[in-house]
Amino acid sequence: MKLTSMQNPQVKAAVKLQNRRERDETGLFLIEGYRELCRASDGGVTIQKVFFCPELFLGENEDSLIAGIEASGGAAFACTKAVFAKLSYRDRPDGLLGIGVQMKSSLGVLSTQLSQNPLLLIAEGIEKPGNLGSIMRSADGVGTDGVIVCDRCTDIYNPNVVRASVGTLFTLPVVEATGADAFLWLKEHKIQVLATSPSAELEFTEADLRGPVALVVGTEQLGLTEMWMNAADHKVSIPMKGIADSLNVATATTLLLYEVLRQRKIGYPLETDLLR
Amino acid sequence: MKLTSMQNPQVKAAVKLQNRRERDETGLFLIEGYRELCRASDGGVTIQKVFFCPELFLGENEDSLIAGIEASGGAAFACTKAVFAKLSYRDRPDGLLGIGVQMKSSLGVLSTQLSQNPLLLIAEGIEKPGNLGSIMRSADGVGTDGVIVCDRCTDIYNPNVVRASVGTLFTLPVVEATGADAFLWLKEHKIQVLATSPSAELEFTEADLRGPVALVVGTEQLGLTEMWMNAADHKVSIPMKGIADSLNVATATTLLLYEVLRQRKIGYPLETDLLR
Repeated sequence: MKLTSMQNPQVKAAVKLQNRRERDETGLFLIEGYRELCRASDGGVTIQKVFFCPELFLGENEDSLIAGIEASGGAAFACTKAVFAKLSYRDRPDGLLGIGVQMKSSLGVLSTQLSQNPLLLIAEGIEKPGNLGSIMRSADGVGTDGVIVCDRCTDIYNPNVVRASVGTLFTLPVVEATGADAFLWLKEHKIQVLATSPSAELEFTEADLRGPVALVVGTEQLGLTEMWMNAADHKVSIPMKGIADSLNVATATTLLLYEVLRQRKIGYPLETDLLR
Repeated sequence: MKLTSMQNPQVKAAVKLQNRRERDETGLFLIEGYRELCRASDGGVTIQKVFFCPELFLGENEDSLIAGIEASGGAAFACTKAVFAKLSYRDRPDGLLGIGVQMKSSLGVLSTQLSQNPLLLIAEGIEKPGNLGSIMRSADGVGTDGVIVCDRCTDIYNPNVVRASVGTLFTLPVVEATGADAFLWLKEHKIQVLATSPSAELEFTEADLRGPVALVVGTEQLGLTEMWMNAADHKVSIPMKGIADSLNVATATTLLLYEVLRQRKIGYPLETDLLR
């Protein structure tokens, strides 16, 4: 069956999922793109439906992806270009858009997955979905143990989070929790808290970040809440040598995450180095 | 005089500047936001006109900014909220939008501005204006000597470059040049070329980046052109420990720029450190 009408109830139901309220009520969300659908599938996300438009395909493996989704019990709907354009929220659609079932993890589950020397990311009140997704992409890049999203402003299943995360959202352990719960959980696991503050004297490359650590990042506009600033074991700044007083939040987060990775591999600068 | 009509020729002329062709033909561009206008002013940009809507002001210094623009020969136009909404290209307008005159710098001028140990950024064919702006913000953050935009896909005066750069575009030396000219210029000034490549064996934290260096970054999709890959003195990779094979281009750029800063301050890891 080929969907040719924008009025088709399948199409209308999918478009509605661009809306947060609809996502919250149904527990479903949109996954657009070949790469993103593959990663969702790898990450164990149940893909309920997939809409496709072969005229827009960019690669050669789309058919086997669709067959795989059908084999797992998903329904597949061919669409005309016009119908697909109505469904798509991308600049350059690649002819694939799925509906997935949201997964919920918890701090309890995350406890069972921690490595020996955990590295975690706590994202507090990040407003822009693109930033939250980009943060997840970097958290994947350094191989964090997980991301804890606190006091969310944007839901993690926003289509732009999915897009900016390039699907890493589905394979990273991601937990939503209150700030208070996350804080207690970190204490329980003896994980230090690292926060950035423009006024901190210590630069991020000068703190010893080799042990179990959770990087906490907040909004660009308001920074971190008092609770986290008080909770921080390390407060570090990022040197700003130009006229701007801060970096984009996703960029700043990535710098700190990779500094942890660097120190764990190459070592912590010795005091004598710092005094040079 | 208060502008109340969307049909006003001043309003129509300003809206047209959202269009690249109009910017290229007129040599003008849009600057939205208090912070961005201040930085344009600091950077010596001629601000021809400013549109303002006091009901949307967020701070207390807007009036003096407007007075300063008028004192420098610019025209100021009060607008109704409806007219300002038509002009604005932001999610949350702050009631200020100016028209600036594009400035053109050159490699020759940049030569006269180089520090003793230059750090430059070469951006080749970056497609998304938000990424180009974000790269400029980070280039400002580390205090680069300048940014050279090669074989541009997006013009540096695109409103989203201005926005994502938070106005650092106006104070950073930014030059547009062909790749070939930029390459010869770097050779002439004995500046090494640093490129990232996913297949490079050396990680970016393991290369000695303390000397004069230019970081070259390209599109996420296609990477750097052959010319730059052949020209590179250092090819380095960014460790990717998760499922994704790359970071966002602006994020990756920032990591490399800050690693140069770190090494210049704290030192280069000794060979023995690397073997640990």
